[in-house]
Amino acid sequence: MPPSKVIFLVCDGMADRPMKEKGNKTPLEAARTPNMDSLAADGVCGIMDPIGPGIRPGSDTAHLALLGYDPYKVYTGRGPFEAAGVGLELRPGDIAFRGNWATVDAKGRVTDRRAGRIKDGTKALAKALDGIKIDGVHVILKTATEHRTVLVLHGSGISCQVSDTDPHKENLVAGCKALDNSPAAKKTCNVLNKFTEYSKKVLKDHPVNRARIKDGLPPANIVLARGAGMTPDMPPLAKLWGWRPVAIVGVALIRGICTLAGMDVPVVKGATGGVDTDMLAKARAAIKGLERHDLVFMNIKAPDIGGHDGNFDLKMSSIERIDEAVGYIKDNISSEVGLVITADHSTPVPVKNHAADPVPLLMYGDGVRTDNVKVFNEKAVAHGGLGRLRGKDLMPILQDWVDKAEKFGA
Amino acid sequence: MPPSKVIFLVCDGMADRPMKEKGNKTPLEAARTPNMDSLAADGVCGIMDPIGPGIRPGSDTAHLALLGYDPYKVYTGRGPFEAAGVGLELRPGDIAFRGNWATVDAKGRVTDRRAGRIKDGTKALAKALDGIKIDGVHVILKTATEHRTVLVLHGSGISCQVSDTDPHKENLVAGCKALDNSPAAKKTCNVLNKFTEYSKKVLKDHPVNRARIKDGLPPANIVLARGAGMTPDMPPLAKLWGWRPVAIVGVALIRGICTLAGMDVPVVKGATGGVDTDMLAKARAAIKGLERHDLVFMNIKAPDIGGHDGNFDLKMSSIERIDEAVGYIKDNISSEVGLVITADHSTPVPVKNHAADPVPLLMYGDGVRTDNVKVFNEKAVAHGGLGRLRGKDLMPILQDWVDKAEKFGA
Repeated sequence: MPPSKVIFLVCDGMADRPMKEKGNKTPLEAARTPNMDSLAADGVCGIMDPIGPGIRPGSDTAHLALLGYDPYKVYTGRGPFEAAGVGLELRPGDIAFRGNWATVDAKGRVTDRRAGRIKDGTKALAKALDGIKIDGVHVILKTATEHRTVLVLHGSGISCQVSDTDPHKENLVAGCKALDNSPAAKKTCNVLNKFTEYSKKVLKDHPVNRARIKDGLPPANIVLARGAGMTPDMPPLAKLWGWRPVAIVGVALIRGICTLAGMDVPVVKGATGGVDTDMLAKARAAIKGLERHDLVFMNIKAPDIGGHDGNFDLKMSSIERIDEAVGYIKDNISSEVGLVITADHSTPVPVKNHAADPVPLLMYGDGVRTDNVKVFNEKAVAHGGLGRLRGKDLMPILQDWVDKAEKFGA
Repeated sequence: MPPSKVIFLVCDGMADRPMKEKGNKTPLEAARTPNMDSLAADGVCGIMDPIGPGIRPGSDTAHLALLGYDPYKVYTGRGPFEAAGVGLELRPGDIAFRGNWATVDAKGRVTDRRAGRIKDGTKALAKALDGIKIDGVHVILKTATEHRTVLVLHGSGISCQVSDTDPHKENLVAGCKALDNSPAAKKTCNVLNKFTEYSKKVLKDHPVNRARIKDGLPPANIVLARGAGMTPDMPPLAKLWGWRPVAIVGVALIRGICTLAGMDVPVVKGATGGVDTDMLAKARAAIKGLERHDLVFMNIKAPDIGGHDGNFDLKMSSIERIDEAVGYIKDNISSEVGLVITADHSTPVPVKNHAADPVPLLMYGDGVRTDNVKVFNEKAVAHGGLGRLRGKDLMPILQDWVDKAEKFGA
């Protein structure tokens, strides 16, 4: 019988390049991964270009592709996914940004892009700014973790073709420029610049900032915006593919993507989106998720962090901890559950950034055509029975695997 | 010397998924196939997505792709291919349907969708209905095997955006609805509904039916139509690729596709399109076909039937009989003939329907780059030298193999 449910685990940035100083091994190759190796031996493997060969994916665009959306159609910027990830309800057409609480001096020059990495009082600051209307556009501000915010513009005739207000360097003045000649871009720029001035005016003498100045801390006296994107009209996965999906995801960006894909995105205690995340808690949540859902989508961020840090050992140990979580999953699924393990992109330790190298892919469960691959790593799976696929192929393949795909023709 | 002729054998629905209760083998893996194994050992193998990864193909759309046509462009429904398959001459733009002789009661409710699986007298019934003109549209009716018919509308301003008249369940009333707001869809619907009423009127007191009623058999007193499609303008294979092609095919749907592709489609005695087909007769016809043609396209339907029936052993034995036919072909071709063996889709026994799993592909003949594959089955060929292709790639590859492809560039 084909599986009726699927657990789909994305090990963020797990794929890598072999390093001479590590015996020509990748972190995944060097890691002890008995559980993933056993799944590879009993399953079918391959490699996958998340977007396409040579296309260096973002975590956001890669996840969109893995979930069956065309990132070239739905992705205009990171803002909407971050905003949805912190729980803002967005409507298609809303323009959204990521933002920072920052510090400006009397001349309007940004002196600290993170307002001394402010942690406390940001909710009160956001409350003072949230909900204003400028030129008919509703401005929604929500504080996120630490110095981070999200900013959403809701109204008609607005565009994401605008620059960041964030100058990205200290000692420069914040400001937005239109990126095309459309009236919508100009209007959006005006609104954003007016909001920036408004944020300076309101925040200047806010009690939270007065207290910070008294304590010798840089005040959070401006909001900087970046990553403009238009909220896409994404048909929910339930409608597109008939899944009842749930996402076990810590990191806000991916939570936002899953939310906009219409998935349930519960908060899992101990899931931080960091290297300290409780992977077993996520594995337990995944197994629990099978009770009421037929697609359990998981993201574990940790390997990506080791990759960005250029820290081979941190990445390797993150992968070994993932393998333990995979062991828990493997021991707790019945034959009605298929298991897919892959990555959203490579984050090679020597590159310290995402790279386009294909990612390993493993399918385990009833009906897969077992191949000769015995261990799970980038080199071994390249000889696997799935060959070389693209990220966008995966959802249709899973759909077909669980016998839910529509036939094209007769 | 490159081959100058190709035999291209499609084993319908042959690909499958391994089943635990069969030692984790597929029917092809379990079958004794010494001839195909020997060709695999001497040839080059790979896997192929007939339409694309995860896309569950119909036999019709898959065959179109394998013959080098884009099913997304030429396929709107099964009707035209069925109609061409029973020998109707179609013109591009004709709207065609499959149909059934059926039984309605006095209130117009369908009481038997197959008129008691009527076999005799259907030619006379068809003659009574064929050739009428309704609102300027010419209606052509031809009876096919048993209770089956085909129905063709020829005229201007008609559309395939219409529902089936067949209610698909008993005790419902037959009727056509337009699927869009176009005048053409409305017109087509009107014509079809008028024809349905006309069929009831003419058939009611037809001698064949009077005799059936007397014998206690359900009368064939209505024609139900389904599977509307517009006849595509398909350039013949001879023009597209320069082949002199012949099709050794039993099943009507595929005969229709080959006919619309401009192939000679002789009737082979003993070729039934069923599990009882005379496979050796088809093999002999294929060898004979080489005398006057340079592309011999073959379809053997039997494995698909075992798949749909969920009958592992029937499918396995069909494959073993195909292997004998392959043995005959292998023993009777010279080095000027290349041989291709593949399937149009998977019909996994546990799924009892088509699935998108890739199909095995084998090329044997002069100039192929022999790989390490020693046996012909889904798992083994996945490690083959052809990698993972798409159905639409195959025709250009064959074209190039026989040194008929045009160079792109200098």
